[in-house]
Amino acid sequence: MTDLQGVGSPDLTSTDLYEKLNAQGEKVRTLKSEKAPKAEIDAAVQELLKFKVDYKTVTGQDYKAGCPPTNIIPNSNGPAVEDGDDQVDPWNVSTTSAKGVDYDKLIVRFGSSKIDQELIDRIGRITGQTPHRFLRRGVFFSHRDMQQVLDAYESKKSFFLYTGRGPSSEAMHVGHLIPFIFTKWLQDVFDVPLVIQLTDDEKYLWKDLTQEECYRFAVENAKDIIACGFDVNKTFIFSDLDYMGMSPSFYRNVVKIQKHVTFNQVKGIFGFTDSDCIGKISFPAIQAAPSFSSSFPQIFNDRKDLQCLIPCAIDQDPYFRMTRDVAPRISYPKPALMHSTFFPALQGAQTKMSASDPNSSIFLTDTPKQIKNKINKHAFSGGKDTIEEHRKYGGNPDVDVSFMYLTFFLEDDCQLQKIRQDYTSGALLTGELKKCLIETLQPMIATHQERRKQVTDELVKQFMTPRKLEFNF
Amino acid sequence: MTDLQGVGSPDLTSTDLYEKLNAQGEKVRTLKSEKAPKAEIDAAVQELLKFKVDYKTVTGQDYKAGCPPTNIIPNSNGPAVEDGDDQVDPWNVSTTSAKGVDYDKLIVRFGSSKIDQELIDRIGRITGQTPHRFLRRGVFFSHRDMQQVLDAYESKKSFFLYTGRGPSSEAMHVGHLIPFIFTKWLQDVFDVPLVIQLTDDEKYLWKDLTQEECYRFAVENAKDIIACGFDVNKTFIFSDLDYMGMSPSFYRNVVKIQKHVTFNQVKGIFGFTDSDCIGKISFPAIQAAPSFSSSFPQIFNDRKDLQCLIPCAIDQDPYFRMTRDVAPRISYPKPALMHSTFFPALQGAQTKMSASDPNSSIFLTDTPKQIKNKINKHAFSGGKDTIEEHRKYGGNPDVDVSFMYLTFFLEDDCQLQKIRQDYTSGALLTGELKKCLIETLQPMIATHQERRKQVTDELVKQFMTPRKLEFNF
Repeated sequence: MTDLQGVGSPDLTSTDLYEKLNAQGEKVRTLKSEKAPKAEIDAAVQELLKFKVDYKTVTGQDYKAGCPPTNIIPNSNGPAVEDGDDQVDPWNVSTTSAKGVDYDKLIVRFGSSKIDQELIDRIGRITGQTPHRFLRRGVFFSHRDMQQVLDAYESKKSFFLYTGRGPSSEAMHVGHLIPFIFTKWLQDVFDVPLVIQLTDDEKYLWKDLTQEECYRFAVENAKDIIACGFDVNKTFIFSDLDYMGMSPSFYRNVVKIQKHVTFNQVKGIFGFTDSDCIGKISFPAIQAAPSFSSSFPQIFNDRKDLQCLIPCAIDQDPYFRMTRDVAPRISYPKPALMHSTFFPALQGAQTKMSASDPNSSIFLTDTPKQIKNKINKHAFSGGKDTIEEHRKYGGNPDVDVSFMYLTFFLEDDCQLQKIRQDYTSGALLTGELKKCLIETLQPMIATHQERRKQVTDELVKQFMTPRKLEFNF
Repeated sequence: MTDLQGVGSPDLTSTDLYEKLNAQGEKVRTLKSEKAPKAEIDAAVQELLKFKVDYKTVTGQDYKAGCPPTNIIPNSNGPAVEDGDDQVDPWNVSTTSAKGVDYDKLIVRFGSSKIDQELIDRIGRITGQTPHRFLRRGVFFSHRDMQQVLDAYESKKSFFLYTGRGPSSEAMHVGHLIPFIFTKWLQDVFDVPLVIQLTDDEKYLWKDLTQEECYRFAVENAKDIIACGFDVNKTFIFSDLDYMGMSPSFYRNVVKIQKHVTFNQVKGIFGFTDSDCIGKISFPAIQAAPSFSSSFPQIFNDRKDLQCLIPCAIDQDPYFRMTRDVAPRISYPKPALMHSTFFPALQGAQTKMSASDPNSSIFLTDTPKQIKNKINKHAFSGGKDTIEEHRKYGGNPDVDVSFMYLTFFLEDDCQLQKIRQDYTSGALLTGELKKCLIETLQPMIATHQERRKQVTDELVKQFMTPRKLEFNF
């Protein structure tokens, strides 16, 4: 997994629509040739026109019979799909809006589904737990096939979780924890096994790093991940550089996927060019393979049919749209997905976080003092320039990074709501808001550091050893 | 390995020349700017002009500073490089000449070296053995860096052998044995370890076969290979589908190679297109990796510096030109090569042998009767239409397939020479020539079948288990 990854075309949706249009056109022709009643023909034509409008909305192109929607994305030097001022692709996420990326538009563009209140309530009902704050607050905002996963779960057909991280450095910041915090919650409330892929091979291919460095980062990152509290009896963490050489089944699935994806396809989805190395070009299959339970015969008792649920940041979706496209052709179930929003840099939602800039985020190694100073100095404020103005006009929490961070990490909904109100009214000053964030993050990071210290090399080895995991299905 | 593979451009040679030209241009400029003596400048300019002529000869293009020789090959639907009427590429070998491909031209085109009498004599001297008939008769006719391998061997720096096979079916014919017969001889006379790659992953990617079928073919083919008499203490045979999942070091080398080869390069060398699957595009790295001893740490005691010698058919050379190009950039020694000619179909050197046409060659499973019938019915004859004409004008051994097969399999040089003379003079009739081939192949195949029967599943498992091999260096 790359840290921030993105987006190709809404290919499944547009292809679906294209096929629907073909079928509907055929239906109209048949009705006419059979001289069906006028009302029936008219209804079919109405339907056809409606599909044409949908098609134009999704693809931006007019429907033409015989021309499938293959070239929606301009194959430029990257799969950049600009929507307003947002750019979201596998290696770039940027927006000019201080509020961040427009996620509703992203759902339409990707053809995924919104995680609405009804779905959140259903998760609460089924698990008997209060839905996680990331669900309550729209951090995980989009999904694919979650209803189907829950249907199966209710009829005693369980699933496994898969998430991952691209270990590009030793330094992890609080934003990197988002998928892991949520995945740990899912593991707990659904009581399911989990595989975590560390794509050290990918980092070697993309960055100016040696394999040894990437592998070392993978092991170091594994410690931070383990510190999130995963159950060792239900969790397998693996480095690609290691696991590929430990499991013929994994490689067999990788080759199976590689046989069913062309260069044209990865060019369209990821924007690869002829100058890219063949390692990058074939890598997407390696991120796809853990979506299939047969990649882990030791873990899942040779079962090939287990459904997979992938919690990840929305920029990873292109990998899994590709995976979902391939799955039925190699007789495996499509993975389901839950997508999260991006975590903003301290400097604001328009700027990019960077592991090489220690001031762009709060790192998991920061001291209480560093946390305090960074937030006070660097966290972009939605407040007014003077106390007088602030008291009079109030601040804007929607562009305030301290407030955004609190939505991620402050558990208490009432307290968060009160902060929003008071900040908006001007009753709460920027300094006070920042203090609140500092007091939230300092103990959280300290606890993390304490837990990480407890993670022995022995425990890491245990997590990273392929073995049967506990699961009840 | 594909059964018959081929040829891109003489890229190393042209790149070398290009770099030489750049350096020489730089030298001339420096001499001029330093106002060196006229004679010295003139000599340097002469040298420059000479390089330019060489460059044009090799690339067919004029040298231009700043424009490396990248697009020598037209990137059509395949790397077809036509030379006269021969076409030799990784998946096609064809010629319109009944004598077969013009191998001298191929050496020039590939930038390899001829295995000349001096080299053959040197091999005989160093090993203290009569050079193998494949050397004496030009079956192995071309090489890269053999002198260097022998230099090192003489100063007690030994090497390991690497060859392979693409297991596309259970059926192997006598032609498939050529590299193995020769490799076994090399193993014996040099006393060196050997790795044999069975590219079942490649066959899965290229053919309409399941992974299970390809793997089964790999194991079946391994039995025929073992029957050639390899020393189990010095030979490791592996299926890619298996070994990739058994050795992190192998995968690490594959990724290392994949990082250093672009799609442009494999497009130029192998003729891949955008419609090819990403598995094919990245496969060349998998055939390249066994050229490096670090891919087999269990076998070579973690040594990274062992020189590799690859005996293979000339059509495999593109894989290893690519490998030799990458090697110095990842700090590994370049593999040396010995190339063999192609084995003709019974119907003649212009036709393609096919495992699906049982009459196109003698298979290792043929009965004595089948061998007799096939040769009598199908072996293309260089004889005349009637006995009278044949007696009067003589036959042509150079297009006679029975005679060609005898050059591969009849050990006695004198006998072969006499057959050639008598056939040319008309003293020997086609039927008699065929009888001679039948009597050579029948016992050879029977012995092979007898040996293959002795190959137990246990022995196959032993050969295919990664383990330390015996070697004295």
